[in-house]
Amino acid sequence: MLKLEQLYSLIDQEASRLKWPEEPKLLYDPLRYMMDMGGKRLRPRLCLTSYNLFKDDIGEHILSPALALEVFHNFTLIHDDIMDNADIRRGVPTVYRKWNDNIAILSGDTMCLWAFKMIGKAPKQTLDKALNLFTKTTIEVCEGQQMDMDFETRNDVSLDEYIKMIGLKTSVLLACSSAMGAVIAGAPDKICEGLYSFGYKLGIAFQIQDDWLDSFGDEKTFGKKIGGDILNNKQTWLLIKCREMAQEKDRQNGSQTSSRLKELLAMAETSGEEKIKAVKEFYCSLEIDRLAEEAVNAYYTEAMQSLKNSGLKEDQIRQMETIATSLVKRNR
Amino acid sequence: MLKLEQLYSLIDQEASRLKWPEEPKLLYDPLRYMMDMGGKRLRPRLCLTSYNLFKDDIGEHILSPALALEVFHNFTLIHDDIMDNADIRRGVPTVYRKWNDNIAILSGDTMCLWAFKMIGKAPKQTLDKALNLFTKTTIEVCEGQQMDMDFETRNDVSLDEYIKMIGLKTSVLLACSSAMGAVIAGAPDKICEGLYSFGYKLGIAFQIQDDWLDSFGDEKTFGKKIGGDILNNKQTWLLIKCREMAQEKDRQNGSQTSSRLKELLAMAETSGEEKIKAVKEFYCSLEIDRLAEEAVNAYYTEAMQSLKNSGLKEDQIRQMETIATSLVKRNR
Repeated sequence: MLKLEQLYSLIDQEASRLKWPEEPKLLYDPLRYMMDMGGKRLRPRLCLTSYNLFKDDIGEHILSPALALEVFHNFTLIHDDIMDNADIRRGVPTVYRKWNDNIAILSGDTMCLWAFKMIGKAPKQTLDKALNLFTKTTIEVCEGQQMDMDFETRNDVSLDEYIKMIGLKTSVLLACSSAMGAVIAGAPDKICEGLYSFGYKLGIAFQIQDDWLDSFGDEKTFGKKIGGDILNNKQTWLLIKCREMAQEKDRQNGSQTSSRLKELLAMAETSGEEKIKAVKEFYCSLEIDRLAEEAVNAYYTEAMQSLKNSGLKEDQIRQMETIATSLVKRNR
Repeated sequence: MLKLEQLYSLIDQEASRLKWPEEPKLLYDPLRYMMDMGGKRLRPRLCLTSYNLFKDDIGEHILSPALALEVFHNFTLIHDDIMDNADIRRGVPTVYRKWNDNIAILSGDTMCLWAFKMIGKAPKQTLDKALNLFTKTTIEVCEGQQMDMDFETRNDVSLDEYIKMIGLKTSVLLACSSAMGAVIAGAPDKICEGLYSFGYKLGIAFQIQDDWLDSFGDEKTFGKKIGGDILNNKQTWLLIKCREMAQEKDRQNGSQTSSRLKELLAMAETSGEEKIKAVKEFYCSLEIDRLAEEAVNAYYTEAMQSLKNSGLKEDQIRQMETIATSLVKRNR
């Protein structure tokens, strides 16, 4: 097994070697733009590390499928940004804002298709399994995005529904990334499934942590303004859990906790800092912040348990755990 | 070899058995809507017939990839209709008009991904070649669509550029469909390439015929209003050939043919029938109508030549020729 730093540097090398066609320019410029935005390349890292648990022959047959996961992820961002009217991503204009809707639609489509071309470099012996895992996953990501859009017009989303949605929208691609390397290496099904489950649970932990950070994080380390979700009344783990607990409290002792939450949500966005402060205090009064941290820890523990039950060896588990800890910072 | 009618009925059966998930409803309703619009299912027909030239064991391993070609084609229609602001397709509202842009983007994405899922049913021995052919083709289709959009703001498109564009936007998918069956059947490369070239040339002939029909066809058999391309000054084979010939004439004998064409194109769309009549007469005066028919025939002949040079046997060639004649009606 190589060291993680070596694996990561192989990913970065391969990414810098990626060559998109020059023409048609308006089709490929947005792809270059997205791929040059950087990012941690978490999905390729998971995939290559998972492959390297079993095999040392690192070449195009695994680097190309590993990067396909990043290319696909970037495609979803291009299209999601149109659907969400998002103007800025990683500090620069989104593709549909820099160019236009049509360019963003068609460049996105092309990017998605290149991801499949890159998956096609997997070795013939395991290509069928790799392709099936990838298509299943990518379809689920779209289903998750649709669920998320459906949630926008609802205020009765349950925590179970929310977990299902982030499971599809976020976790399955991390699960696929964790399993893909092992699948391409021809590892036993039970181990591939264990790695999939690890990535899935890790993804849920990561998303709940992200929800927590948006309200309770440190602006400097989080990298964006704190409180955005609160201002937009966004359906997050915190808000949904809070709504469920408020309703439970009202049922138990006839309190008016739900009404109080509704009042807070009805505060105009313009009241800015005041609203953020009030909602955070309300969350804390119901211990939602602590419960979120507990949930993150619980999903993280489940992720590690999946690895342990899969039949992987100690050193293999430790390698994957190192990635997990870089992604989810536990507080206990 | 089965009869074409038998093959076509197997395609129709399989299409009617296609089951899309019920949920999320807003994601899958548009897919059902598109697939129920009907159409000739030309691409699956080409694919299944090409497979059956070599093998008789018709099952999911070929029917599913064959239908994938239709599913992919329908995905491109959903996204193209957004980009082209097209309100009506096959007599009913387009997806983005019936629902909205976001639904059309995400349902289209999902449809594209399902096409790959269906290609994934190809037998393991030939999956790598089938997938590579499919990804190469689908990327080219997007490149063709981008070229077509680039042409909208130009009035100096050459006939060579036009043929390249329709080659990508239309022909490569017919080429891929013709070759895919043989590829999945494990036929020799030379034969697969011959079938690809056959489908490519046939596609060019088909598109030039379509351009001709839009101006010179019979409204009843063509199924839509004659003259739409003329009213929109659309860059078609007829217009581009006409422009090139007018310029050539002006160079040779100092005529003002190009200026006359420009005047005609500048006629307001509102003058409707008058403009259509004037442009058609102008085309006829330069014999563009006859030249278009000749070009259709020439590409058709090249298509058949590709089959003959590929090493296919007489009865195999005849089977493919029957599809070709149903697609391109020659006039001589």
